[in-house]
Order: sequence, then structure tokens, then C-alpha cells
Amino acid sequence: MLDEDRLFPSESRTRGIARDLYAGIRDLPIVSPHGHTDPRWFAENKPFPDPAQLFVTPDHYVFRMLCSQGIALTDLGVPRIDGGPTETDGRKIWRLFAKNYHLFRGTPSRMWLDHAFETVFGLSQRLSAENADHHYDHIADCLSKPEFRPRALFERFDIEVIATTESALDDLRWHEMIRKSGWKGRVVTAYRPDSVVDPEFEGFRANIERFGELAGTDATTWTGYLEAHRIRRAFFKSYGATSSDHGHATARTENLAQQEAAALFQKALAGKCSPEEADVFRGHMLTEMARMSLEDGLVLQIHPGSWRNHSAEVMARHGRDKGFDIPTRTDYVKALKPLLDAVGMQPELTVIVFTLDETSYSRELAPLAGAYPALKLGPAWWFFDSPEGMRRYRELTTETAGFYNTVGFNDDTRAFCSIPARHDVARRVDCAYLATLVADGRLAEDEAREVAHDLAYRLAKQAYRL
Amino acid sequence: MLDEDRLFPSESRTRGIARDLYAGIRDLPIVSPHGHTDPRWFAENKPFPDPAQLFVTPDHYVFRMLCSQGIALTDLGVPRIDGGPTETDGRKIWRLFAKNYHLFRGTPSRMWLDHAFETVFGLSQRLSAENADHHYDHIADCLSKPEFRPRALFERFDIEVIATTESALDDLRWHEMIRKSGWKGRVVTAYRPDSVVDPEFEGFRANIERFGELAGTDATTWTGYLEAHRIRRAFFKSYGATSSDHGHATARTENLAQQEAAALFQKALAGKCSPEEADVFRGHMLTEMARMSLEDGLVLQIHPGSWRNHSAEVMARHGRDKGFDIPTRTDYVKALKPLLDAVGMQPELTVIVFTLDETSYSRELAPLAGAYPALKLGPAWWFFDSPEGMRRYRELTTETAGFYNTVGFNDDTRAFCSIPARHDVARRVDCAYLATLVADGRLAEDEAREVAHDLAYRLAKQAYRL
Amino acid sequence: MLDEDRLFPSESRTRGIARDLYAGIRDLPIVSPHGHTDPRWFAENKPFPDPAQLFVTPDHYVFRMLCSQGIALTDLGVPRIDGGPTETDGRKIWRLFAKNYHLFRGTPSRMWLDHAFETVFGLSQRLSAENADHHYDHIADCLSKPEFRPRALFERFDIEVIATTESALDDLRWHEMIRKSGWKGRVVTAYRPDSVVDPEFEGFRANIERFGELAGTDATTWTGYLEAHRIRRAFFKSYGATSSDHGHATARTENLAQQEAAALFQKALAGKCSPEEADVFRGHMLTEMARMSLEDGLVLQIHPGSWRNHSAEVMARHGRDKGFDIPTRTDYVKALKPLLDAVGMQPELTVIVFTLDETSYSRELAPLAGAYPALKLGPAWWFFDSPEGMRRYRELTTETAGFYNTVGFNDDTRAFCSIPARHDVARRVDCAYLATLVADGRLAEDEAREVAHDLAYRLAKQAYRL
Repeated sequence: MLDEDRLFPSESRTRGIARDLYAGIRDLPIVSPHGHTDPRWFAENKPFPDPAQLFVTPDHYVFRMLCSQGIALTDLGVPRIDGGPTETDGRKIWRLFAKNYHLFRGTPSRMWLDHAFETVFGLSQRLSAENADHHYDHIADCLSKPEFRPRALFERFDIEVIATTESALDDLRWHEMIRKSGWKGRVVTAYRPDSVVDPEFEGFRANIERFGELAGTDATTWTGYLEAHRIRRAFFKSYGATSSDHGHATARTENLAQQEAAALFQKALAGKCSPEEADVFRGHMLTEMARMSLEDGLVLQIHPGSWRNHSAEVMARHGRDKGFDIPTRTDYVKALKPLLDAVGMQPELTVIVFTLDETSYSRELAPLAGAYPALKLGPAWWFFDSPEGMRRYRELTTETAGFYNTVGFNDDTRAFCSIPARHDVARRVDCAYLATLVADGRLAEDEAREVAHDLAYRLAKQAYRL
Repeated sequence: MLDEDRLFPSESRTRGIARDLYAGIRDLPIVSPHGHTDPRWFAENKPFPDPAQLFVTPDHYVFRMLCSQGIALTDLGVPRIDGGPTETDGRKIWRLFAKNYHLFRGTPSRMWLDHAFETVFGLSQRLSAENADHHYDHIADCLSKPEFRPRALFERFDIEVIATTESALDDLRWHEMIRKSGWKGRVVTAYRPDSVVDPEFEGFRANIERFGELAGTDATTWTGYLEAHRIRRAFFKSYGATSSDHGHATARTENLAQQEAAALFQKALAGKCSPEEADVFRGHMLTEMARMSLEDGLVLQIHPGSWRNHSAEVMARHGRDKGFDIPTRTDYVKALKPLLDAVGMQPELTVIVFTLDETSYSRELAPLAGAYPALKLGPAWWFFDSPEGMRRYRELTTETAGFYNTVGFNDDTRAFCSIPARHDVARRVDCAYLATLVADGRLAEDEAREVAHDLAYRLAKQAYRL
Repeated sequence: MLDEDRLFPSESRTRGIARDLYAGIRDLPIVSPHGHTDPRWFAENKPFPDPAQLFVTPDHYVFRMLCSQGIALTDLGVPRIDGGPTETDGRKIWRLFAKNYHLFRGTPSRMWLDHAFETVFGLSQRLSAENADHHYDHIADCLSKPEFRPRALFERFDIEVIATTESALDDLRWHEMIRKSGWKGRVVTAYRPDSVVDPEFEGFRANIERFGELAGTDATTWTGYLEAHRIRRAFFKSYGATSSDHGHATARTENLAQQEAAALFQKALAGKCSPEEADVFRGHMLTEMARMSLEDGLVLQIHPGSWRNHSAEVMARHGRDKGFDIPTRTDYVKALKPLLDAVGMQPELTVIVFTLDETSYSRELAPLAGAYPALKLGPAWWFFDSPEGMRRYRELTTETAGFYNTVGFNDDTRAFCSIPARHDVARRVDCAYLATLVADGRLAEDEAREVAHDLAYRLAKQAYRL
């Protein structure tokens, strides 16, 4: 299924250059500085469940596409909030998936799936209604073998380091279990405090109380709350964390006077923030987090601009993260100014900003990252973690921000078997882009070779301090 | 004038693939599910008037470009609202057009015109000041022949079905005349109720009264008004309509309580809506139309985002639709939510949404269409019905929405002779895109062949239920 | 360092066409209708200072990129507002620049620098830490020779005419000195009245008083103020000006009644305008300027949409124009309507509009310029004066506005040695684009040849009336 030269430019000389560049970096280990794999997999090292549970039911890229063509989420095994019936027969789900595999034509999901089927499971035929059972049985059979357990795959995928993402309220028990196990795989956590930073998060006050307990401070005072963050950040650092991560609806930042922030925090605790005040508080906390980063060295990631759970019906029936998160127009120039005025000129700080609004690449983000020492551009994210998306990312950012204000690739996934595929796509697309620059006389070949290595490996380690 | 390989990729292997894909679909019949041809042409089957009346005076793509370079609209025969003098000598208009033909270099108009000149009228020389009279005489001569009458051209163009667009107040007399004539050409109507849905439309109250008369109900009550829609939709269906069409300034939808909608309707009838209330009413009516679509099966088309008649001077002198409609930034994520929350998860409903804001393709429309079963993406529209526009459309939507949440091509034109050219451009650009996917190893050739057929023919029939 | 075929398409037939087109225009003289070179250079004709002062310290493209990677602006010799220490040793600055030359990979700065090093100074090795001193000494040596003085370079660059930009308050002494010197180089000025049009400009009232003195009228009355503009415009015209230029934060225009404008002017003089009123006043003045253009024939340029001096810290320490100008989302459809309703249909007027928001090309600017006779599109500007930026500009504007509503190239630079490089990049990218149209069968080769000449030379002269 996999073309040796996939994603390379079609013109033969340029393709040749891309091939050479890729040959120099294809076997570099995987550095995965941001993602959502489950540390429990590596802690327990139990076999993955059936093929549908591995490839269909938990992958919002996959079930949203099937849903968009009228297939019920319950027919794909997506759980219901009310505990009502949903398909549990993996084979039935798999057949439905296989029968509709043509829907994925031209999508990155298709490339990732084919790559996993072929390179992880050794399947050579494109999935179809006809071979659905064969593929199901074959994958199920593999999954029962020791060499398909999480740790074995981790090693086979040549992952040098992978970061998971845990809530600030997490006890990191699985990370502790990995550590104690003596296994050598490097799995680190990242500090995600949305539940204790967003006054509109479910159970905000209870979260803050729990947060204080975990930190051993009274987190219901402003100074105690900030202290709790410092303590929890240190705890996460002790499990390898080198970054924090923040998923907000907008990129808004604020830099309030401490007194004002303290008062707003009390209002938030009392559940009396207006939506605007809640937004101000979230925005202010990004600047607080940046200040703590200057103290403890954690890299600050901002993932803004998704309208989460857009369908009221799907949210009510199936809950969060069910493929109905829709990007929105996002402003960065005004939004980031308070944070940048506070800490943007600090070269020892790293703030990595992502976008789901591609119009901001050339207009806002590349000019900002091409000026402020603290600001770096995260890679093409989510819907744009795709061949065209990555190509546009390079074409729209490089001329203004260069390569060295970007930070390499993130797979940002919970789909474990897609990790090698995703990194491979990124490496190929970057080599294709570099080959074009070389063929166009915009870059010398020796430089392109160095940049290819930087993009595939060095920049991620350096930017994320891994 | 026409290059056999036009619009195909330049690299030879990829070009070869595109050529093969195109060979498989070039001769498919034309399915034209949305457009603005005049049913009277097919009803009366009279000869088209002179070449200037066919190609220049009624084509806003053509006269706007000439106007932008300082040529007066009256010198192109565009009628004046005050009935004042405008050029009526077709030959003089044609000479002015020919002399300025270089202005169209690089535009789709140029491709459509050359295609019509060569394939419809057998002209082989590029239009110029020198051959203006020759071309004029030749085309005029053709137009006097029976094989250039509307029905003959319809058949020669191999149009399987074409949809016109009529106001909800139209009596469909030309469609009736076509039907009675016994001619076999399939010309269907579409339901366009802007004049009875938009409180700001000229003569809204009178329109509603006339609407009620046509439907045989009292349309000045809310329930009578909704009933009148149902009746008129059924009437349009009896003339082949499979869709309704809605041209609003924004994509805003609302889902009011019935009582609230009824009260707003009365306010609209009384001419007392504020602009905001008028907008709410229009938005609510899209949701009502969607609910009726669930009953009667009409496909709902939304064409939002054009600032109509932007120039006050041109509007005052020449009236509507004179080339001064300018696209505006359009939001879909917030705007469509009320409608999508009401009916977006219904797989039996089809809502086709278009855009003049290309930034919404990858950020908003592909993610929405790639999730909601009821939502499909209309093809690249208006200014983007062009080779680059179509290429961007595919590159920006396919990775997130796939091919099967799109609906094939619309020519959306009143320029009859451009119809084969426009479909040909779409087929070529799609084959070029598919060839690139094949050459890049992103799609297998057998799949590309199937998709090419889908995009050129099947999807339009299926999405529009034709 | 320079590839003969740089920036041409990679596919061989298309590359051949591009090469041919380029051969036909590469040696055309440079027409530079808008830029920021210093007329004093040509007036005094003194040697340029050291290499760092020529290439690093004054070039905001260069020092912003170095700054973004944590290099202090003071280490690059950027002056401080407080007069505090900043690096003055050219060689030290140069070494720092050379050591970090890899940061410019893939940027247009890199292409311009390499081009200047090779074609102006005859250097053939890529700049690096190793050869930093060699290059420094070589360039310094060149600069001491007569053939590297400003006038000699002007002639060697084959500049037919160059426009500088001066404040409406400038006495044009350097232009006077050039004129008196008898030197034949054509250096013209342009009228930039921001300091007397923007109520928020530092010292607005004093500026107006000085403005009146220079014009010999009382500029503190509304009619006297307008008269002063007329007088100063005439004065600028007497030094060759064919255009005015306006750098506003937005593209807003207004067309107030004269009485209202007069009252607002008094409020501005009194320093009592709200930000909104200041914006209205600026917007109104664009329409006044357009009306004066109808009288005196100056071309009106609008450069909107930059958030100037975004970093409070850099602004406080180093002042304006230090690489922290960030583009913002810009609306044109609503913003330009008042001006276009007033004068947009006048074919004898030329308003050239630029953008830093690329989303406006296809959505707003091409449709507007493709309709209004008075409106033309300026070339890809600032961050988009780059190979990819120019390619997107053509791809996004040509299909709707054609070539003849664009105005050729602007180098818009104060980096004198980059002028040939910038024009060369524009010529190559345009030839590459035209070659693609020819190879795709969208344009005949004889037409492409004519268009290439138009884009490289004729359109700039014609649009700017040079």
C-alpha cells in the first residue's frame, strides 16, 4: 500500500533531492514532546483490546468522518452518557468501518491507518468490505502476542521520549508505576491545569480544594493558589515534565495587578464570575504560568481557538471530545500582547503557541515569533497535521519566522499506532519542502540536510528541553 | 486556442495520470443542479440575440472587468434605471470588448470565452481588435441557424438535467410551457424565497400578500405563512424542484420559539423590524426551511456572504447585479449552530453551504461538514469558480471533510454558452488534483478513477437528489 | 551562491518557458515608484559607512530575526532612546550576524543578502562565522571606492527612477541639492502627510502650525488646512512627486459633510478627539486626499493594517520601527466604501491599496479592484515581498482582478543594496507564474511575454504616472 516516494515532489530532480534528505533522517528516533497517549498502557503493559477498540472507537478523526455520512456513533461503539446501549461487538464495528473506508480517501487518517496496517501489522491489502474479517482476525491475533504490547511497540517505534498530558489534579500514579517497574522507556508527563485555571470548568471550587490538598497548601487564597501551582509544577517536573499545556477557547492573555487578580480569584471561587471575567482570569493565569516558567523552566504551550463540543445533541448524548470540536477565527496580536509585554523579551522563556486558524500563520504568528525571543511556533495542529496542512505551514511561516522559531513536530495523539506514521508524514513533507527550496535555488543542499535533521529531531528536543 | 492538456499538472508522469483520469470522465453528461439560466429560452426556443447580448452585456464577470479599467457601463449596453441612453449597437459593444480582450488574461472568463468561441462557434483565432468584426459576423451568423437555438445547444452540450432558480412568487409559466411542449430536455426549477423571507426585501408585505394568493392561504398569519411555504414548495416540486436556495448577507441561523417567531413575523409585516430583528427573522426562516426539507425532501442551499451592490453610484444608475457584489468575511461556526442543533444530526436532511470567504474552508466548513450528517459543502463559488479557486478548495477541504461531504460541481451561471466550459474546467482541475494524490502516493489509481467519476457526475445527482 | 534558474518552476518545460520570459525582461531598467531610500545619499554622494551599518543595524528584517533568537538589539548596534550604550564596533556586530546567518535560511532576507554580496560586492562564498572577517574587510574596502558611492551604485543598478518618501513637513532640501548638483539620476519625492493628518501623531497641533508656516497659510482653520495640503502637494510635485502615501492602522475611510469635518478638525487641534474621532478624522482625510488627487493628479497610496511598535519594552527602549510591527486582520469592504462612493467610479483617479492581511486578496481586494475604475492593487507588501508571498498574490488576485488592475513591483525599502535583488526576485516569480499559466494552457506565450514586460516595467510607470 505504501509508495516508497510518497509525499515527495513529483518532478524527478526535486524528488531526488527529497529522497536524499529523507534518507538522512528517516531513521532518527522519535521525539514526541506533546501528546495524549495513556501512561497506563506503559505502566501495566497489557495487550491492547480488539482492532475496533484500537482503531475506530477511540479515534475522533475516524468516527467523526463516519458520523458525517450518517452512521450513528452508537453503531461505532461510542459510549453513551446515559449508559444506554452502544455497539460492543468489535467485529461488527470493524465491518462497518471497512465498508466505509473509501470515505477517508485523501485524508491523513487514511495515510496513518494504511501505514499502521502495513508497517505495524504487516498487512499489504487496502482495507475493504471484502477483507474486513481477514484484517480483523489478523490484527486481533497480533494484539495477543507479546511483541504487540505497549512497551514492545514503544521500543519498536524507536521512541526516544514521549510526553503524556495529565491534569494538575492527577496523582501521576501510572508514571510512578512506570518508574518503579525499571523499564527504560522514557515517558514524561506535562502539566495541564485547565481544571484549576478555568472558572467555568466543571467543579472549579472543588477542584481548587483538591488542588490545595494535593499541594499541601490552602489553595483558596490567591497566594496559596499560586504556591500550589508552584508545588504541583515541581511534582510534575519530578516525573519528567518539561512543559505545561493550556487549552483555552481564545489566545487571550491578561496581566492584572496582583490585588485585582486576587479579587477575581475569590469571585471565581464563589462562582460569581461573568463569562467575561472568567475569560480575564484564564488570560491572566497564562501570564502567571509564564512567570513561573521563568522560575522553573517549564515550557508553556498554548492551544487556543477550538469551539469544543459544538453539537449540543452529541454533547448531551456522548459527552466531550466526540469529534465536534470546530476551529474558530483566532486573534493573536491583541490577545498575546499583555503576556508578551510582561515576559516576551525574555530569551530564557519559551512560549509555544499553536493555531487552528491558518490565516494567522503569515499575518500574525510568524511576525510575532520572528520578533519576540520568548515566542515559538508550534507545528501544524490537529486538522492541519496533514500533508497539505504542513506544506502550508512551512510556506506561510518560513519566510518571516525562519525555521529556528519553530519547534519540530508534535504528534499530539492518543492513537498509539499512528505515531510512527505521523512522524513519517512530517519528515517527508518537510523534506519535500526543503527539496523545493534547494531545487529553486533558495537553499544550499548542505544547509537543507542540516535543517532536515533539525526539524525531525533537534528542534523538538531543544525547544521542549528534553 | 485550446490546449488539449490544459489545467493538467506540468510534470509528465502526473500529467499522464490526469489525462487518463480525464479521459474516463470527459464525456459524462452534464448535471447542473444549481444555476440561473432562463427557462424562457427553452420554453420559447427562439434564437439568442446578437453576440454582444450573448457574451458581454448580461455577463457581470465580463462588464465589471471592462468597467474596472475605466470603460463606462453604458458603452457596454448595460441598461440604465432612468431609461437614459445606453449603447444598443451590438457591433460597437463587441469591438470595445475585443479591443480590451487582453484584460481577461489569466482569468476564468477568458478560458470560458475561448472555450465557447472554439467549441460552440468553431472559431480558432484569439479575439482581438483586428478580428472583432469577423468573429462578430461569424457568431451572429451561427445564432441565426436552428442548431444554435437554446434546445439544440442544450442537447449538443449533453445536459442531462439543469436546474433554474425561480422566486417563490414566480408562476413557473416557462417551466409549464416547456412541459407542455413535449420537448425531452430536463429543466427543473428551484425554490428561492428571499422576497418572502427577508423583511428588508422591497415590498415585503405586498410580497407576502401575493404569496398567500398564490398558495391559496392567508399568509399574513404565522401558521398561514408557513403553510404557504409548504404549498409553494410542493408546487415547485411538481416542476421538478429538488432544492431551495437562500442568498443571505450572512450565514446566521436562529431557532426561535414558535410564539416568538410569530410575533417577529407580525413586526416584519408591519415594517417595524430593526435591522437586527430582520436578520434574526431571516436566520430563523433557514431553520424553518430545514424543517420543511425534512418533510418534503428538498435540499437546502445557503449562499451567504456577499455585500450586494456595493457601489451606491452603480446601484442608483444601473440597479442590482451589476458586478459590484463584494465578498465579506463570513463566520459559520456560531452562525450555523442554531440550525445544526435543531436538525444537523438528521442524516436524511441535506444542507449545502457555500462560501465566498476561502478562509472558512479549512477552519470552519470542512470541520463542520466532516462531522454533521446533514451538512455538505457546496463547490467553489463565484469568484472561486476558477482553476486556482477549485484547487484551493480541494486542498483546503479534502483532508478534513474528504470527498464525500462535497457535492460535485455547480456552474451557477446565466451564461449558457459557458456551461460546457465551466464543467470542463472543474473536471480537469479535479483530475489534476487527483493525479497529484496518486503521484504522491496518497491515493491508489483505481480509487482516483472512481472519485473522478463521483466528482464529475454522481455526487451532484446524489446530493441534489436528481 | 546564486543559482541561474532560481525561483523558476522545477519541471523542465515550464522552467524553459520561465527562462525565456525572464531573458526578455531581466535587463529592463528599475522603476521604483515607492520606497524609503534616503535622498541625502544621492545629494551628498558620500561613501556608505561600514558593512554592519549597511546591512545589519538599519535593517529591521535582519535585526528582528536575530532578536527573535535572543540576541540583544544593543549587541547589534540599534540605538537606545536614552542614549545609553549600544554596540558601535561594526566588526563585532558583523561577526554576530555572520555566526547566526543560518537563521535566515528560507527567508527573503537571505536571498537579498546573498544577491547583494555576490552581485554588488563580488563575494562568492556564503557568509559564515569562518569568513566573517574576510567578508567584512572586502565590503569595507569596496565602500571606500568611488564606484560604490550612492550615485555610482544608482547608475550601476540601472535605476530609471526612484521615489523616496518625505513627510509633508519636510523641506525637501536633499531633493533640492540633488537637483542643483546637475546629476542626472531621477530621484523623486512622495507626499506623506501622516504627521498632519493623524490627530494622535506626536505634536499634532505643532505640526499643523509648522505646516501652515511652510505653506504660507493659516492651517489652523479647516479651509486653510486643506489649502495648505494643496500648496504642499504642489511643492512636492515640483520635486517630482507623483504620489501621496498614507500609513494608517486600518483602511477606514469616511466622507463627512464639510461642516462636520471642520468641527472635528478643531477638536483634533484642541487635542480633544476620542480615539474613535481621531480614526474618523484620518478616514475622512483619505477622501479629501482623493479629491485633491482628482485635481492635481497625484496617485493615492494606502498602506493599512500594521500594529506599529507592538512591544512596549522595545518601543520604550529603542523607539519606533524596530521590527515589532505586526500585521492585523484588515477589512476593506466596509472600510473603503465611503471613499469609493465618493470617487471610486472616477477613471482619472488612481488609488493604490496594499494589504498585510493576505486573506483580503481574493475575498475583498481583487473583487473591489476588479470593479472600481479608481482602485488598483499594490504589490505583495512587507512580509509578503517574498517568493511565496508574491506567488500567493498572483494566484489569489489574477483570476478576479486580472493583471491590469495591479501596478507592478514596489521595493519599498531603505536597504539600498537590496534593490536589484528585490526587483530580480519579483521578475523571476512573475515569470514563473506566467510560465505556469502557459504550460497549463491558460495563456499564450506571446501574451505572457507582453505581460512579463508589463509587470516588470510598464505597469509601474503607468500606474504611478512616472
